[in-house]
Amino acid sequence: MHVTLLAGGVGGARLAHGLDLALAPGSATTGLLTVVVNVGDDVELHGLAVSPDVDTVVYTLAGRGDEERGWGLRDETYATLTALRELGEDTWFTLGDRDLATHIVRTARLRRGEPLSAVTAHLAEAMGVRARVLPVTDDRLATLVDTPAGRLGFQEYFVERQHTDTVLGLHLDGAEGARPAPGVLDALTADLVVVAPSNPFLSIEPLLAVAGVRAALTAAPGLRAAVSPIIGGRAIKGPAAEILESLGHEVSALGVARLYADLVDVMVIDERDGDLADQVAGLGLRVHVTDTVMGGPAGRERLARELLTLV
Amino acid sequence: MHVTLLAGGVGGARLAHGLDLALAPGSATTGLLTVVVNVGDDVELHGLAVSPDVDTVVYTLAGRGDEERGWGLRDETYATLTALRELGEDTWFTLGDRDLATHIVRTARLRRGEPLSAVTAHLAEAMGVRARVLPVTDDRLATLVDTPAGRLGFQEYFVERQHTDTVLGLHLDGAEGARPAPGVLDALTADLVVVAPSNPFLSIEPLLAVAGVRAALTAAPGLRAAVSPIIGGRAIKGPAAEILESLGHEVSALGVARLYADLVDVMVIDERDGDLADQVAGLGLRVHVTDTVMGGPAGRERLARELLTLV
Repeated sequence: MHVTLLAGGVGGARLAHGLDLALAPGSATTGLLTVVVNVGDDVELHGLAVSPDVDTVVYTLAGRGDEERGWGLRDETYATLTALRELGEDTWFTLGDRDLATHIVRTARLRRGEPLSAVTAHLAEAMGVRARVLPVTDDRLATLVDTPAGRLGFQEYFVERQHTDTVLGLHLDGAEGARPAPGVLDALTADLVVVAPSNPFLSIEPLLAVAGVRAALTAAPGLRAAVSPIIGGRAIKGPAAEILESLGHEVSALGVARLYADLVDVMVIDERDGDLADQVAGLGLRVHVTDTVMGGPAGRERLARELLTLV
Repeated sequence: MHVTLLAGGVGGARLAHGLDLALAPGSATTGLLTVVVNVGDDVELHGLAVSPDVDTVVYTLAGRGDEERGWGLRDETYATLTALRELGEDTWFTLGDRDLATHIVRTARLRRGEPLSAVTAHLAEAMGVRARVLPVTDDRLATLVDTPAGRLGFQEYFVERQHTDTVLGLHLDGAEGARPAPGVLDALTADLVVVAPSNPFLSIEPLLAVAGVRAALTAAPGLRAAVSPIIGGRAIKGPAAEILESLGHEVSALGVARLYADLVDVMVIDERDGDLADQVAGLGLRVHVTDTVMGGPAGRERLARELLTLV
């Protein structure tokens, strides 16, 4: 079975890990899982090209991610960042010494003209990742966040200002010209396409905004499922609940289901939201109720196996 | 008194440190010492712009240099380099985590269009260096080394192959178009211009090859002195002796004096070479015989003070 996951950072990375374990336990088999990852959060720091969501997915699939924080590598040191600060650089974005190697290699290869998808494939392979990790586009696509404080760059909003600003709207800069990276549209013809429990606006919308992706998902021949990132009216991590509210949506799995109603066949909601199942079904969606909180690898694999049985 | 030092890496950095101590002991006074530094050894590694001689001078003047090795920073760690190696990068050139911050900042600023001299001034200031450190040119100038194994890039010859190849000749790529960085020609009008005990071919020649530098040194109004890097027929560090020999020069302070006879007024040779003093004088040079081996800061400052008394 071929599975494609549409993913942002932490939640997407964890489900990607689960699917990878469920599809090829203990083997080196590749090609069964494709993860199409958001790049709207990419940022240039100290002249280096940083792709936080892509890296979170790659690091997690490589088993090297810092599970507690949800981003970056385990057992990091920060000697370079300290030195950058001493040289007068703004260091609000934490970059570990080992993580920096990723950005240095990515930047050098991009500057040589390699597309981001090829660079990502190289980095993932070097780290022993067997799934295919595809940035949704090789073109520039930047998520800008409109707030009472003005329009902010994504990482300015998310990391520097700790997503405390009210989100009034989102602008996907470059979306009109961004083409899907090679393999992205093909990947949407998989037996199962899963929309990860990522932020619908910050992580999933930038994927759908790339030319042809929304249409390909709408017309996908396989089964399409979405996992709600909202559980009991709250997000496991990040500002999904606050953004649903500020943009006028219901802050619940039902509110998420309404966003995805035209795009997926199955909505996966948490057992704590079982009372919403009938209303979600009323949107014309198949509903699967389960424990959607992924703790360690075992919980991820369990959720992934349940998703595979939906097909 | 204004002093200008023409310098390569280690030997130049040590004498620069001594002059800095001698000219402004304990003060924050700047502008008395200008160090014009070789850039022919600059190299791009992992997409980062590395200027080894410039950094050795800056780190040494900042009191942060690794004195034992003669290059890089003290108390370094190598987490990023290890990660770069794991990502498949060639890591024959050792880059510490803190050192990398320098290269990251330099690269970002150069890419934004800042000239190397401005970037160097920023880095030196951030590290608390009070002397002015000037790369000899903001233009590209690459020292290539002709050997029996073919023409090698400088760091390929020097670091990767550990300067074991016989040097048949040198080619200064870009020298014909390289213009002196702002301030370089003015600096040669100082009261004292010192040619550091650096490698005459690998460090000093690339300085003189930049348009106008040799002429400005020849016409310099102040006193010009050179310190021999050869002591008792050997170099303190590096392949100066081997290169003098392979290029057909006498491997001695006299051989060095012949190279500089038309450029300086005073030749400073080590007391171990006192027997050569008459022959050096025979070239029309004033000779100063002293202990030229600079150990710690005290030895550097002593030699520097002797140089100041020459004026």
